[in-house]
Amino acid sequence: MAKEKLQIVKVGGNIIENQDDLNSFLDAFAKIPHPKILIHGGGKEASKLADQLGIEVKMMQGRRLTDASTLEVITMVYAGKVNKSIIAQLQARSCNAVGFSGADGNSILSVKRPVREVDYGYVGDVIQVNTHILNLLLMNTITPVFCALTHDGNGQLLNTNADTIACELARALSKDFEVVLNYCFEKAGVLRDIEDENSVIKEINTVAYKKLIEQGTIVDGMLPKLHNCFYALEGGVSQVRLGKPEMLDKRVTNFTTLKR
Amino acid sequence: MAKEKLQIVKVGGNIIENQDDLNSFLDAFAKIPHPKILIHGGGKEASKLADQLGIEVKMMQGRRLTDASTLEVITMVYAGKVNKSIIAQLQARSCNAVGFSGADGNSILSVKRPVREVDYGYVGDVIQVNTHILNLLLMNTITPVFCALTHDGNGQLLNTNADTIACELARALSKDFEVVLNYCFEKAGVLRDIEDENSVIKEINTVAYKKLIEQGTIVDGMLPKLHNCFYALEGGVSQVRLGKPEMLDKRVTNFTTLKR
Repeated sequence: MAKEKLQIVKVGGNIIENQDDLNSFLDAFAKIPHPKILIHGGGKEASKLADQLGIEVKMMQGRRLTDASTLEVITMVYAGKVNKSIIAQLQARSCNAVGFSGADGNSILSVKRPVREVDYGYVGDVIQVNTHILNLLLMNTITPVFCALTHDGNGQLLNTNADTIACELARALSKDFEVVLNYCFEKAGVLRDIEDENSVIKEINTVAYKKLIEQGTIVDGMLPKLHNCFYALEGGVSQVRLGKPEMLDKRVTNFTTLKR
Repeated sequence: MAKEKLQIVKVGGNIIENQDDLNSFLDAFAKIPHPKILIHGGGKEASKLADQLGIEVKMMQGRRLTDASTLEVITMVYAGKVNKSIIAQLQARSCNAVGFSGADGNSILSVKRPVREVDYGYVGDVIQVNTHILNLLLMNTITPVFCALTHDGNGQLLNTNADTIACELARALSKDFEVVLNYCFEKAGVLRDIEDENSVIKEINTVAYKKLIEQGTIVDGMLPKLHNCFYALEGGVSQVRLGKPEMLDKRVTNFTTLKR
């Protein structure tokens, strides 16, 4: 029997931190037919609060170092301010959403990243996704909305990259669904020329992906993003798409599709 | 057919803000057999953050006035810091919990309190509890954990008293369950002499309640608390108990039981 289609959408921080962009995104997301899941970031909002509280934001190779007070700030902003605001706004669009961290429903178990050259602090690497509760909600037309937090099962919350959470959820749910994973951000997709929004590469498969890396077309922040995407495809996800939120309701066809 | 028993527990701010007290409480709560629901406060933590951010805490007759920035603080502390910390700590005790505001699952709809003599700001009076999602989780041995936030269905979160939320949930779920509503706080129950912890009134019914008010035994903060309790009983709740968390696992028999 063919599996039911599941849309998993990750929305980036630059979109959710602008109320107009967030509104357009939520309009488009609310219109996606069931079942669906949303994952959101919120890093810049967290940095703002940390700044107000006089907590220094420490970065290492583009990753946030998470000490105890930073974790507290992240928990307040991601799971509190951003998540609940999105939930209330989805309810206003008749999308029945429930907010999740990985601790809720024991949905995402992780392990604190071991200290090697860098001590990332309270950062979690995902070790297990428990799909039982997600299936239960999805079957009842309820939409889980995840923030970028997981837990270690021993009472400790851990900061986990939102792209990674989207990827791990997509892999795990591919057992039960035909999963399409959408990364919505401020760019139209993977660009041949980073300065030219019209240079979107429409389709990339594994062979083309390796070539693009060799050619130096994929660099910087796009490297870990695409690594996640192909890791999702290897794990059974049927399709990954990268682009602006408009791709969700098909107002644009200008986005990147990744396939095995 | 006899209804299944449901334990609803509200835990007060003074307990959750002390890690030792919180640990004992969570030990006791985790041991309660399914099905069960937890509601928590967190007002003092919110005041602390407001203070750090230079936001003035305004009170009127013991109630917090909630302007936009206070609502933001409350959302971060109640739904973020306090709720997620409790969820992670319950998971560590093998209690599979999911955090809720009233916006999540559209579970508690409220209306912004009309401005009369006092403008309470973003404060919500409950108008509807949607038990569908709660029943779904309870049937699957998942424990909902509510913070003191509701929503108006139009995208606005609202601050709602945690005692009231416990009471409204208890009333609504009495359709499907035999509900016991437990208010856990720092006192051993309703005291005849507020200075004497050994003066707990073991049982109070509606007639005795009216007498105690007339006699001036029930005063101050205990008045709205007991008003809520009897409103719950009128709404079909089978029993309301007030006392220290130890009453949950029957380590003490020294608490107050309220009956119709």
